[in-house]
Amino acid sequence: MADSTLAASYRTFRRDLHQQPEPAWCEFYTTSRLLEELEQREIDDILSGPAIHAPDSRRNVPGDTTLTEWRQRAREAGASEDVLATIGDGFTGAVAVVKRGDGPTIALRVDIDALPITEADSDDHYPTAAGFRSTNEGYMHACGHDAHATIGLGVLDRILDSDFAGTFKLLFQPAEETISGGKSIADSGVLDDVDALLAPHIGLDHPSGKVVAGIDEFLAVRQFEATFTGESAHAGARPEDGDNAVQAMAAAVQNLYGIPRNSAGGTRVNAGRVGGGTASNIVPEESFIEGEVRGETTGLMEYMWDHAEDVLAGAARMHNCEVDIERLGDAPSAHSDAAVVEVVDRVARQMTGVDTVVEYDSLGGSEDATYLMQRVHQRGGLAAYVGVGTDHPGGHHTPTFDVQERDIAVGIDLLAGVITDLAADFPVGGAAAT
Amino acid sequence: MADSTLAASYRTFRRDLHQQPEPAWCEFYTTSRLLEELEQREIDDILSGPAIHAPDSRRNVPGDTTLTEWRQRAREAGASEDVLATIGDGFTGAVAVVKRGDGPTIALRVDIDALPITEADSDDHYPTAAGFRSTNEGYMHACGHDAHATIGLGVLDRILDSDFAGTFKLLFQPAEETISGGKSIADSGVLDDVDALLAPHIGLDHPSGKVVAGIDEFLAVRQFEATFTGESAHAGARPEDGDNAVQAMAAAVQNLYGIPRNSAGGTRVNAGRVGGGTASNIVPEESFIEGEVRGETTGLMEYMWDHAEDVLAGAARMHNCEVDIERLGDAPSAHSDAAVVEVVDRVARQMTGVDTVVEYDSLGGSEDATYLMQRVHQRGGLAAYVGVGTDHPGGHHTPTFDVQERDIAVGIDLLAGVITDLAADFPVGGAAAT
Amino acid sequence: MADSTLAASYRTFRRDLHQQPEPAWCEFYTTSRLLEELEQREIDDILSGPAIHAPDSRRNVPGDTTLTEWRQRAREAGASEDVLATIGDGFTGAVAVVKRGDGPTIALRVDIDALPITEADSDDHYPTAAGFRSTNEGYMHACGHDAHATIGLGVLDRILDSDFAGTFKLLFQPAEETISGGKSIADSGVLDDVDALLAPHIGLDHPSGKVVAGIDEFLAVRQFEATFTGESAHAGARPEDGDNAVQAMAAAVQNLYGIPRNSAGGTRVNAGRVGGGTASNIVPEESFIEGEVRGETTGLMEYMWDHAEDVLAGAARMHNCEVDIERLGDAPSAHSDAAVVEVVDRVARQMTGVDTVVEYDSLGGSEDATYLMQRVHQRGGLAAYVGVGTDHPGGHHTPTFDVQERDIAVGIDLLAGVITDLAADFPVGGAAAT
Amino acid sequence: MADSTLAASYRTFRRDLHQQPEPAWCEFYTTSRLLEELEQREIDDILSGPAIHAPDSRRNVPGDTTLTEWRQRAREAGASEDVLATIGDGFTGAVAVVKRGDGPTIALRVDIDALPITEADSDDHYPTAAGFRSTNEGYMHACGHDAHATIGLGVLDRILDSDFAGTFKLLFQPAEETISGGKSIADSGVLDDVDALLAPHIGLDHPSGKVVAGIDEFLAVRQFEATFTGESAHAGARPEDGDNAVQAMAAAVQNLYGIPRNSAGGTRVNAGRVGGGTASNIVPEESFIEGEVRGETTGLMEYMWDHAEDVLAGAARMHNCEVDIERLGDAPSAHSDAAVVEVVDRVARQMTGVDTVVEYDSLGGSEDATYLMQRVHQRGGLAAYVGVGTDHPGGHHTPTFDVQERDIAVGIDLLAGVITDLAADFPVGGAAAT
Repeated sequence: MADSTLAASYRTFRRDLHQQPEPAWCEFYTTSRLLEELEQREIDDILSGPAIHAPDSRRNVPGDTTLTEWRQRAREAGASEDVLATIGDGFTGAVAVVKRGDGPTIALRVDIDALPITEADSDDHYPTAAGFRSTNEGYMHACGHDAHATIGLGVLDRILDSDFAGTFKLLFQPAEETISGGKSIADSGVLDDVDALLAPHIGLDHPSGKVVAGIDEFLAVRQFEATFTGESAHAGARPEDGDNAVQAMAAAVQNLYGIPRNSAGGTRVNAGRVGGGTASNIVPEESFIEGEVRGETTGLMEYMWDHAEDVLAGAARMHNCEVDIERLGDAPSAHSDAAVVEVVDRVARQMTGVDTVVEYDSLGGSEDATYLMQRVHQRGGLAAYVGVGTDHPGGHHTPTFDVQERDIAVGIDLLAGVITDLAADFPVGGAAAT
Repeated sequence: MADSTLAASYRTFRRDLHQQPEPAWCEFYTTSRLLEELEQREIDDILSGPAIHAPDSRRNVPGDTTLTEWRQRAREAGASEDVLATIGDGFTGAVAVVKRGDGPTIALRVDIDALPITEADSDDHYPTAAGFRSTNEGYMHACGHDAHATIGLGVLDRILDSDFAGTFKLLFQPAEETISGGKSIADSGVLDDVDALLAPHIGLDHPSGKVVAGIDEFLAVRQFEATFTGESAHAGARPEDGDNAVQAMAAAVQNLYGIPRNSAGGTRVNAGRVGGGTASNIVPEESFIEGEVRGETTGLMEYMWDHAEDVLAGAARMHNCEVDIERLGDAPSAHSDAAVVEVVDRVARQMTGVDTVVEYDSLGGSEDATYLMQRVHQRGGLAAYVGVGTDHPGGHHTPTFDVQERDIAVGIDLLAGVITDLAADFPVGGAAAT
Repeated sequence: MADSTLAASYRTFRRDLHQQPEPAWCEFYTTSRLLEELEQREIDDILSGPAIHAPDSRRNVPGDTTLTEWRQRAREAGASEDVLATIGDGFTGAVAVVKRGDGPTIALRVDIDALPITEADSDDHYPTAAGFRSTNEGYMHACGHDAHATIGLGVLDRILDSDFAGTFKLLFQPAEETISGGKSIADSGVLDDVDALLAPHIGLDHPSGKVVAGIDEFLAVRQFEATFTGESAHAGARPEDGDNAVQAMAAAVQNLYGIPRNSAGGTRVNAGRVGGGTASNIVPEESFIEGEVRGETTGLMEYMWDHAEDVLAGAARMHNCEVDIERLGDAPSAHSDAAVVEVVDRVARQMTGVDTVVEYDSLGGSEDATYLMQRVHQRGGLAAYVGVGTDHPGGHHTPTFDVQERDIAVGIDLLAGVITDLAADFPVGGAAAT
Repeated sequence: MADSTLAASYRTFRRDLHQQPEPAWCEFYTTSRLLEELEQREIDDILSGPAIHAPDSRRNVPGDTTLTEWRQRAREAGASEDVLATIGDGFTGAVAVVKRGDGPTIALRVDIDALPITEADSDDHYPTAAGFRSTNEGYMHACGHDAHATIGLGVLDRILDSDFAGTFKLLFQPAEETISGGKSIADSGVLDDVDALLAPHIGLDHPSGKVVAGIDEFLAVRQFEATFTGESAHAGARPEDGDNAVQAMAAAVQNLYGIPRNSAGGTRVNAGRVGGGTASNIVPEESFIEGEVRGETTGLMEYMWDHAEDVLAGAARMHNCEVDIERLGDAPSAHSDAAVVEVVDRVARQMTGVDTVVEYDSLGGSEDATYLMQRVHQRGGLAAYVGVGTDHPGGHHTPTFDVQERDIAVGIDLLAGVITDLAADFPVGGAAAT
C-alpha cells in the first residue's frame, strides 16, 4: 500500500460509530452496526449475545432503566430489532470466525465502548468541524474505540482477501472502559483454541508514524463503589441527631489519596465519582465513592486495596456510619510475548507510514485485554498488545481527544500484515505447538 | 367547636396535596388546586402569578428542564391550563383578599412546597396505609406544608362565615424549603398595608394539644452552591495532569464543619448535597457543594459565612482548582411581638383540644417567613409565628413524618379565633395605629 | 472605703507572684510565699501538703523532671526548704482556718497557678513597663490568679480585723488551669463542714466597676491525651513499610472540629497541643493530641466525648495505627445559689468603686471550682461564683492580659463585705441550717 | 587478604564513634577523633574547619544552644580544645590529602553524622550486648556512618602502604542525614581537581557478601519547614477569636500526602515531624511541619514541590493563618559512571568475602553525595556510588540497625583495590584526560 489514506467506507463507518457513542454494556447500536457489516461478508461463524459471554463474569451491568434507555436510543438510531433481541440485557459485542485451511488460530481483539465525557463543540475539534460530533450528548468516543472497531473490520477484509491459512477470530469486546467486558469474554471460552492474540490500541501519546511492537506494564486495577450510610436530620434544628455520611466520604477521599507510595513500583488511586446528600438543610444520610486503585503489579494493586479498605472503614467509624464496599471490576497485569513482538517489529519496519518502531513500552494504565491475554497464556498461547501512534490533539479521556484517520489505515496494514506473517510462520511456543 | 375532628372536605384537600408533593417553585398543581378552591368562594381579590412576586427577588428557580417536567406532571394530574399559563416559569403561590368593612388588615401566611425525600412505604406510615402516599416518587410533604395550606383554607372559610371587620389577606407562599419564596413575596409589596401577620407551623416536636403562642430565635441562614473546577486526566496513565476537584471538595467539607464554634450563640453549617467526577478512572474536573450556614443572629450567620468563604477558597487553592461561590438564599432573624402573642395565648387557653400553652419557644431552625415578618415590622406592623403541636411519628424532613389531622382542625380554630379577636380589638403598635 | 487604691503591701505581694508564675502542681514558690504570709497572721489552723489533697484525685501531675526543675527554681527564688519538704511531689496550695465563735462556716476559694504563655515584653504592657514581668520565661499569670491570691490574703486580713462570728476557711487552690486541683481539694474533705463557698474571678471581659453577683453556665469540660502509634520507616526508601501516626493525628484533628453542633446548647472542642514524628525523612511512628471537649451541660460534654472517641478510633483505623486515649481532667457544671447571690448583689450595690451590678451572667468557660461547689452542694451548703470586673488590655490567656490593681481592692472589699454579712445573717438552706 | 576480619584498631575506632553519635553539624567529638587519627599518619595536607566549607552553602545549622550543648558533650568526651576552636560553630568534617607522584586525583567520600533515634537496649542488639551502645541517649548511628568513617581510615592506611601513584583525597563529610553537608563541601571547591570520586555505603538491604558496583536512581529531595501562624484564644470562652494553626497544619498534612502520583516516575512526600499549640484549652496560634518531597528525577521532585506549596498556602488560607515556608535542604539526582563501575565490578569479583556482585542497583532514597558527584561531573570527572552489603538486623534508621564488622573490612579491601587500580590505569573521560 503506497500511502495510508483511509478508504471512504471505513471512514464512514468510523464516523458513524463516533456519532453514536455508547457506554459499557449499552453498545446496542454499535453491536447492531457491526453485525450488519459482518453479515455482508463471507464469514464462517458470527457469534453474538450470551454465546460470547460467561454470564457470571459480567460485571457492572447497568440497571434496567439505563439499559432500556440506551436500547431505545439504539432503536431510534436504526438498530436491528433482531439484534436487540439477541443482545437482551446487555450481552453486547460480537465475534467473527474465518476458517481458511490448516494453520494456527489467531485472534484480534478490539474494544467498542465509549465514555461519559461531553465532546468538545468548538470548531477546532475536528469531529465537530467535520460534522460527526457525538449525538449522544454527555458521551464520547474519547479513547479511540471507534477507530479500534474500524481497524477490526479493515483487518477482516484484508484477511478475507489474502491467502491466510489457519483460523482467524475477530473479537469486538464491549465494556472495556469499566474493565468489565474482558473477563466475561475470556471466561466464555471463546478464546480457548487461540494460538496467538493481538490487541491494538491507537494513540497512547505516541505520535503518528510510530509503532510500539509490544506494550507491557499494564497497571493491575480494581474498581469499587463504597456506600456510606448514616442518619439524616434537620441541619438547623437537630444537627446532633445526624450521622453525616458526607463527612465520612470526605474524610475517606482525603485519606485514600494519602495511602503511602510504594518503593516497589507505581501505584494509583482515584475517587473518580462521588456524591451524597439530598438538600442543603438536611444532614446527609447517604454518600458514595466510585473509585479505583492500581499497581504496576497485582501485588501493588492489592497493597493499595488493603489500605483503601482500612481508610474506608476508618472514615465510616469516625462519623458513626456504615460503609458497604462493593468490588466492581478488576484487571490483572499481563505481558507481550517476544515471539509475537518480533513479528510486529519486523512488519512495522517494512511499512510505509511508519517512521519509528520501538520494541517495548509500558502502558501506564489498565486494560481488561489482560484477562484475554492471561487466558490465552494459560492455554499455552501467545499474546501481544500493540500500539499504533496517532497525533491526538487532546489527551485520552478528555473532550478534545481525536485520532488521525490515516492512522486507522496504518493500524489495518500493520495488524493484517502481522496476522498473515504469523500464520505463515508460526513461532514456537503457541498452543498449536503443543 | 366541641371537638377537633377535621371536616371531610379539608381532609380530602389535604390528602390530595399530600399525594402531589411539588418542590420549591414547581408548585404548579398545588397552585392550580388552591386557585380552584378560592374561585369557589366569595373573595374580593384573588392574586397569582407575577403579581405577587418581585421578579428580581426570586432565587433558586430551577432550570427550564425541571420546570417543564413539573409543569407536565401537574398537567397530567389535572392542573388548569389557564393557571399554568399564569404561573409561567414558576411564579407559583396565591393571595386571597377579603374586605369586610373598617378594621385592621390582618394577614395569614402558609407555605405550600414539599421536599426531595422519598416517603416511607411501610404500612405503619399512615399515609401509606390510608392510601394517600406521595405519587411523585422521591418527593414528600415531610414538613407539613400540606397541613399548612389546609389550615389557610379553613381559616378563610371561618373568616368568611364570621363578623370579622377589616381586611384579611391569605398568602399561600411557595419555595419555603429553599428559603427562596419569602423574599420574593415580601419585596412584591403585597404585604405593605398589613397591620398584623400570623404564620403558623405544625409540629416542630410539640405534641398534639400544645400551642406555642410566639416562636422566636429563628436561625438566620444563608444557602450557597460552591463549584470547584480543576482539570481532568486519565487516573491511571496521567494522574499528574489532573487538578482534582473532588479532593478540593473533600478538603472543603472537612474544614467547613470545623469552623470554630462561637461563644456568642449557636451556629450551624451543613454540606447537604455534594458531588463530583464522572467515572472511576478519570481525575474529577468538577465538583460541587450545596450547603448552608446559620446563626442565632444575622451576625453569627455572617461570621460563619466569612469563614466558609475562606475554607472554600483555601480548598481550591490546595488543589489548583477554581471555585465559584453562588449565594442561593438567605433568611434573616425575626421575633414575635408580645401584643400578638398575648392574643394567641388567650385564645389558645380557651380552646378545646389544647391542653398546654407556652408563651414563647425558640425555633432552632430557619424560615423565610422572617422576610415577611421583617417587612411588616419595617412598616410598623406586628407579627407572630405560632406553633400548633401534633404527634408526628418521624421527625421533620424524614421519610416517616406525618401530622394528626385533628390538629389541622385545632390550627384552623386557633388562627381563626386569633384573627377575629385581633380585628375586634387591635393592639397599639400596628400600622393601623400610625 | 472611700476609694479603691490597693494597699502597698498587697501590691508588692501581687507583683511578686506575677514575677514568679508557676504552672499547675508546680506552685512551689507561690505556696511557700503564701505560707510565709499566713504564718505572720493570727490564724487558728494552717494546712498544707498532703493534708489538703486526696492523693487518688490528683490528676495531670507532671513527671519528676518537671517537678524537680520547678522545685529548684523555687529554691533559687527563695522558697523555704521546710515548705518544699511538706509539698513534696506537688502537693501545692494551702488552707487557712479562722475560728471566731458561733456562726456558719464560710469558705473563700482562690486559685494560684499560671499558664504556659510567654508574657508580652513591649512597654505598653504594664507589668513590663513597671518592672514586674514574668521571670519564668514562657510562663505567665495570664488569667489573674496572682490577683486572686492577693484578694484571698486581703479578705483574710479584713476578717481578722472584723467582728466576724463563725468559721472562715481560706483555700488557695493549685492546678486550676489544667482542671486538676479542684477535685483533689474537694475529695480531701476539707470543705465538708462549709455552709457557704465563695469563689471570685477577676476580669472575664467585665470592665472595671462592674460586679457579677452570680456566675452560672460553667461549661463542663473533659481534657484528654490521645496517643497514636504506628510504624516508622524510611520515607524515601520504604514508605510502604510505615503506618503513619501523623496522618492519623491529622485526620483526627480535621474531624474532631467537625463533630456536629448541638441544638441543645453550646459545645466546644479543641486540639490544643499536638505533635508527632522525629525527622523529615522518617515516617512518623508516634503522634499525640492533647485536647478537650466541653458542653454547657455535662450531657453536652458527654455527647462531644462520645463523638471524639469515634473520631479518634476511626482515624487510627484509617492508617493502621493504635490509639490510646487517656482522660486527663474533668469539671462538672455548677450553679450559683440565689440566697448567696442576693447578698453579693446587695453588698456590691452599696460599694464605692462599683457602678454596675448584674445578678447573673454565664461563664462561657470551664473552671474546676465547680468540683468544690458541687461538694458543698452535696452536703447541703450554698455556693456562688462571683465576677469582679477589670479593664484588661488583652484577653484572658493571651500575652497582653493584665488586671487593674485597684480592682483587686474592689475584690477584697466585696468579698469581705459579703462574708461578714453572710455570717451575720445566714440564709436558710446552708449546711448550718440542717 | 585471606579473610575479612576487621583489625582490632579499626574495631576500637568504630565502636568509639558508635558510642558517641552526634547529629548533623554537631560532629565535634567525631571530627576531633578523626583529626587525631590523621595526625598520627604521614599525610601531606590535613584540612578542617571553614577551609573545607562554603559558608553560604551550609544549611540547617542548629542554633547556638544546640551547638554549645554538643560542643560541651564533645569536650567532656575528650575532644581537643584546638580542634573545637577550629571547628567553631559547626564547621565539622575533615579532608586528608596524600600526594604520591604523577597520576590522577582520586577522592573517597565518607559521611560521619548520626540520627535522632534512641538505640535499642535489649541484649539481642549487638552494640548493647557488647557494651558499645550509644552514650548520647536519643541519638544513634543507625545508618552505618560509623562504619563509613572506619572504611575511610582503613582505605587511607592501605593507600599509604601501597605503591599508589597520584593524589588521594579522603573526605569525611558531615551533615548527610539532613542533606546539608554535601553542598557545603562541594561548593568549597575542595573537589575541583578530582578525576574520580568514590562514595561507599554499607547495607542498604544488601546482605553480607554482596557488592553493588554502581548505585543509581538517587531520589532528588527537598526538605522544608512550614510554620503556620494564626491567633490564639481561650478555647472555651472565645473560640471564635482564634485562627487555629493546628487545623491549618492538619489540613496541610492530609493534602500533602494526597499530591497526585506521577506516571513519569516515583515520588515521595513526608510530614516527618509536626507540632503545634501550647495547652489543651488554648486555640493554637502556631504550628509547623518539617517535611520533604522527593522524586526519581529533579523534575519530579520539583513537581512535588510545586504542589506542596499550593497545599501549604491553601491550608493556611482555609484557617486565616499565615504560612512561612523555609527550604532546608536539597539534593539533586546523580548517576554512577560505567568506566568506574566496571573497575569496581572487576575488583569485587576477585575478592574473598564477596560472593555476589551486581553491576547496578537503584538507591530508592536520597543522599547528598550527589552534590559532590554532580560537582565532579561538571568538571569532567567521573564518579560512582558503591554498595557494600552487610546483614543488618534492623532496617536503616531504626533502633535495631547494626552492621557486621567483618563487612567493614570488605569495604576497606574493595575501595582500596578500586582506587589503586583506577590510579594505575585511569579510564578515558576523567578530568585528568582533558
